[in-house]
Amino acid sequence: MGMEHTAIRCGTLPRGPKNKISDVAGVTVGHATVLGERTRTGVTVVLPGTDNTFLNKRIAAAYVHNGFGKTLGTVQMQELGTLETPIALTNTLNVGLVHDALVGYTLDRCAADGTPCFSVNPVVGECNDCTLNDIARRAVHAEHVRSAIETASADFVEGDIGAGAGTLCYGLKGGIGSASRQIEIDGECFTVGALVQSNFGRTADLVIDGRRVGEEILLRMAQAPFTPAQVDKGSIITVIATDLPVSSRQLYRILRRAGVGLAQTGSFMGHGSGEVMLGFSTANVRAGAQSFDTCRFVRDELLNDAFRAAAEATEEAVLSSMLHAKSAAALDGTVYPSLADFDLF
Amino acid sequence: MGMEHTAIRCGTLPRGPKNKISDVAGVTVGHATVLGERTRTGVTVVLPGTDNTFLNKRIAAAYVHNGFGKTLGTVQMQELGTLETPIALTNTLNVGLVHDALVGYTLDRCAADGTPCFSVNPVVGECNDCTLNDIARRAVHAEHVRSAIETASADFVEGDIGAGAGTLCYGLKGGIGSASRQIEIDGECFTVGALVQSNFGRTADLVIDGRRVGEEILLRMAQAPFTPAQVDKGSIITVIATDLPVSSRQLYRILRRAGVGLAQTGSFMGHGSGEVMLGFSTANVRAGAQSFDTCRFVRDELLNDAFRAAAEATEEAVLSSMLHAKSAAALDGTVYPSLADFDLF
Amino acid sequence: MGMEHTAIRCGTLPRGPKNKISDVAGVTVGHATVLGERTRTGVTVVLPGTDNTFLNKRIAAAYVHNGFGKTLGTVQMQELGTLETPIALTNTLNVGLVHDALVGYTLDRCAADGTPCFSVNPVVGECNDCTLNDIARRAVHAEHVRSAIETASADFVEGDIGAGAGTLCYGLKGGIGSASRQIEIDGECFTVGALVQSNFGRTADLVIDGRRVGEEILLRMAQAPFTPAQVDKGSIITVIATDLPVSSRQLYRILRRAGVGLAQTGSFMGHGSGEVMLGFSTANVRAGAQSFDTCRFVRDELLNDAFRAAAEATEEAVLSSMLHAKSAAALDGTVYPSLADFDLF
Amino acid sequence: MGMEHTAIRCGTLPRGPKNKISDVAGVTVGHATVLGERTRTGVTVVLPGTDNTFLNKRIAAAYVHNGFGKTLGTVQMQELGTLETPIALTNTLNVGLVHDALVGYTLDRCAADGTPCFSVNPVVGECNDCTLNDIARRAVHAEHVRSAIETASADFVEGDIGAGAGTLCYGLKGGIGSASRQIEIDGECFTVGALVQSNFGRTADLVIDGRRVGEEILLRMAQAPFTPAQVDKGSIITVIATDLPVSSRQLYRILRRAGVGLAQTGSFMGHGSGEVMLGFSTANVRAGAQSFDTCRFVRDELLNDAFRAAAEATEEAVLSSMLHAKSAAALDGTVYPSLADFDLF
Repeated sequence: MGMEHTAIRCGTLPRGPKNKISDVAGVTVGHATVLGERTRTGVTVVLPGTDNTFLNKRIAAAYVHNGFGKTLGTVQMQELGTLETPIALTNTLNVGLVHDALVGYTLDRCAADGTPCFSVNPVVGECNDCTLNDIARRAVHAEHVRSAIETASADFVEGDIGAGAGTLCYGLKGGIGSASRQIEIDGECFTVGALVQSNFGRTADLVIDGRRVGEEILLRMAQAPFTPAQVDKGSIITVIATDLPVSSRQLYRILRRAGVGLAQTGSFMGHGSGEVMLGFSTANVRAGAQSFDTCRFVRDELLNDAFRAAAEATEEAVLSSMLHAKSAAALDGTVYPSLADFDLF
Repeated sequence: MGMEHTAIRCGTLPRGPKNKISDVAGVTVGHATVLGERTRTGVTVVLPGTDNTFLNKRIAAAYVHNGFGKTLGTVQMQELGTLETPIALTNTLNVGLVHDALVGYTLDRCAADGTPCFSVNPVVGECNDCTLNDIARRAVHAEHVRSAIETASADFVEGDIGAGAGTLCYGLKGGIGSASRQIEIDGECFTVGALVQSNFGRTADLVIDGRRVGEEILLRMAQAPFTPAQVDKGSIITVIATDLPVSSRQLYRILRRAGVGLAQTGSFMGHGSGEVMLGFSTANVRAGAQSFDTCRFVRDELLNDAFRAAAEATEEAVLSSMLHAKSAAALDGTVYPSLADFDLF
Repeated sequence: MGMEHTAIRCGTLPRGPKNKISDVAGVTVGHATVLGERTRTGVTVVLPGTDNTFLNKRIAAAYVHNGFGKTLGTVQMQELGTLETPIALTNTLNVGLVHDALVGYTLDRCAADGTPCFSVNPVVGECNDCTLNDIARRAVHAEHVRSAIETASADFVEGDIGAGAGTLCYGLKGGIGSASRQIEIDGECFTVGALVQSNFGRTADLVIDGRRVGEEILLRMAQAPFTPAQVDKGSIITVIATDLPVSSRQLYRILRRAGVGLAQTGSFMGHGSGEVMLGFSTANVRAGAQSFDTCRFVRDELLNDAFRAAAEATEEAVLSSMLHAKSAAALDGTVYPSLADFDLF
Repeated sequence: MGMEHTAIRCGTLPRGPKNKISDVAGVTVGHATVLGERTRTGVTVVLPGTDNTFLNKRIAAAYVHNGFGKTLGTVQMQELGTLETPIALTNTLNVGLVHDALVGYTLDRCAADGTPCFSVNPVVGECNDCTLNDIARRAVHAEHVRSAIETASADFVEGDIGAGAGTLCYGLKGGIGSASRQIEIDGECFTVGALVQSNFGRTADLVIDGRRVGEEILLRMAQAPFTPAQVDKGSIITVIATDLPVSSRQLYRILRRAGVGLAQTGSFMGHGSGEVMLGFSTANVRAGAQSFDTCRFVRDELLNDAFRAAAEATEEAVLSSMLHAKSAAALDGTVYPSLADFDLF
């Protein structure tokens, strides 16, 4: 059951055909889920294309909405405005190992392409899944990252998978979610896609299309064995992809609007909720050795629909992550239900 | 009719007794409205206290949510983390003259207090009221700024007054609005207050407590002579005051949550909508000539309620600005109705 | 006597033909000096071209090196990456009036060009000249700004003129200085020009080409009636212009290197010295109403010479401002000598 | 041979007794050097004290001077203004593994202290040592990080050791260097210490105390087998420690002045030279579970000496790293001499 089958409205712009970040041509997503006794975690990768990203850098940006998080790689993204690896998402304590795995992957890929690489800036986002996963184990290893990259596809699964295997959202099961929106400029169609790793929110705060669903759930579960999230902690990482030709500065402006989408679901940007937006454009690829690039950029005055698209797709991606995730048991036995269990719509 | 009399819910925290920014002890607000043929504008000032702010600097912060605006004074606020003048709000093209007026006011005030001043950093926010006001005239002069300061009071009027005389919000009449929230930490009560100059939003986007009021208005006005706002342009300046003892860094974190409140009313942070948050704390006043200050600061882990308070108070301040403003005619004769005209609640 | 006649070395790149910011084609500079009893101040404007900047926006950037200053207009420059007025420099307390003058100028210019303007973002930098000038008078008025714009020329005067009439630098007379450097990329020649309003530095810290000139001056003046600057306060505003095709992000990187040039003259970025860099490129002018722009940008890997050029031109501009300025008497009668008085080279 | 024995002047403030970062009471530094066939790299750690940093967080700041680098951990440092692990320095491709090692170390340390830890933000800086070290091997492992921490001492060695084993600086051998300065405020003595991992600079640019030493070396080596650095690439990471009671905002201001020290050695902040400053204060330790902290902070007006101290100590730390490092052979056999080989002083 995808968001496309529900009656939930998230804004007014048309969805892309898949309603996923992969509606942006070339973008693929791969997962590796790591399950075991006391282990429920994984890694999710977003690839801007099947080519070597290090040799074909994408215009990119990073926006820190709430910096209580451990996302790696933002310093160089902000300085140079480019992305040179897939973006990987994983659990908080695993970012170092996943970073190292992306280094290894890039070195091998560049060696295979005949261009030795001696420096690379992996980008790794994270959420803390320690309620469902014994996070101290750092169970995600290089082979998982490789597997996620190798199996990446435009038709990827959402929910409690990959980096979303162990996350919670508004006290329910969280996970990986995605959505997309189409916009038109001068008769040309562009796509803005979002993918989130959702792990934030207080149950009472959940709002869907203006409806206080969180309060409804609390009422309904008043007699049931249910442990609502009382504090907004965790994290939410949002990846935005677009084929709109934008500069790094413009992309940064788009990323900031992803925060509007989070607010639409009820987020107050809690202290403990690290919130980082990472984005890239597939237009104006930076490749080759020439001295000058000729780029085509949309005017800022025409960014309004892209802003709206980023907000809507992010909002829907959060809800989609929750609707696709099945209920799961925490390390202490507590069961965290799925939003889909509530038959709300 | 104040917001306190309506049935509108904006979050869950208790309101302060006045439900205004002046619930923060010492804070006062003054207006000067400038009306004339083709002139409908003014200035609104927020004072952190009746004392000389230059000699009693307040810990302060400035956050640029969307920088397509002309707010003055943020550079020094961000570097030094202090406020040394009242905060003034006015129209876009009048910021220079109002800046100069604050210079004059501060020099005189310091001279009167026996401490000559040779350098001061006025803080001036702005919205563009050119639909209702012949903005090219820069009708706000030094005497208006002085008058606003001299008549500042804790019991100030909201709506189409002062810097809000000529503004529009979601295609309806905008203006000055305010609200406050109370929070408790360790048994101690603190207040977070917001004041906005509202001048942004597309009519279709207006949301009140989750209800798509903008779409309702469009339907209701389908046959009436009504010119909805089709594009989100204008600006929204938010001033946050608190007596919570916070550092400039912490205050910046609080200011960012004001953006959540704007999103709750339907804002997508449109390209053309300059959105700036300015804030100060009345705790830990920086006065005297000692070499070291002893400050008391709340822990970041306890900021969640202050974050929520900033979001809720900002959301309500926007709605209050619209509910208090009366309908008004533009320069071209178009009448912009008040939200209160619709009998929606 | 220009810097080109001295034996002072500032780096290794070739100077432009004028060794001024106006070596960047199209750039002109105008001054209005305001002198009177107890008044010694003025305004200096840098124009990116003779066309209407509002209609032909330049790619621009603003970098705050030390934000203890009152520079206006940086918020929008940073968000949109464009400049839409001439850049004006004046004294600290006059920024409001000069801002207003640029508003008036732009409205008139746009009206004359048949495109009414309702919103504009003037950019105004400042230094505090209160030692030589009764700064409370705000003696610079709209007519001075107009005059400076109207008389702007590629062959402008440096030294104690315009916004530099009342400034001090390293305890000597400061002023307006300028320099330029030429760089070559792929056989194509580009220019980076700098103009400074110098008003900073402790006498003991002055270094010229590695030589501790400040200490030499202190020794030489030990018996003379000389009041060295004991504290680094004041400000230094640097304007960088280039015809290199760069994005706003790249220009920001170039502006940061102007700080290297200041350090070469001995600056420690003192607390009280507000240091702001403002820059624009004359390439890729943003004009017309099309939806997309096609831009040509140099690769970041090739920015090294532009970085070096910005540092060298800024260093030399500071020295040039001092060498061109004549000695002057302060309000209290103290005479501040010119660097040129010392016959050091 | 330490810097204290040379005739080189770096500014005017008095040095601390050790002339090292460890003059700040409690600060220790440890190295692990990893040598092997084609391996010449390592890790260096700076500890703010012997206590558990996670439980006794230090007020901290991170400043990105040039973001073409892979330093990890800055996002949270900037948001919360605290440091909760030792700062580790290593080679560019090893940051992931060192990050993971700091995670492991912190979990173990917290477990030993009876306070389980589920989230931690390691801070890792890096330089690219690929000329002397087969960087693709990521030879620094968890045991090296542990060893560096366990052997950390106030009396640590400088030069080609630890994270400096494989670095180059101005085309000569670089390494780890350190220096300190003492300042006095109100009769109280404070220390500012710097430690650098130096790996930047073009040979021709090297300047020592105003003398163009780089050009001298080029002349002297004209006939010798010498490969000067023609491009400024690599990186320079600067760690600043102080016992001055400062806020995160104030510490950020201090860190920015470290860039002045780099410029004094001839740096132009080349495109390829990632330059990041990381700093902490040992005053106002954030420990315990109380709701409010009482902090003592110095006034910004009194920061000038701390600014100067940061610049001077950083300048000297760079020179010290070069003077302590012995000559070394690169992977291709090229020998990079030590600055000490030239008998310049």
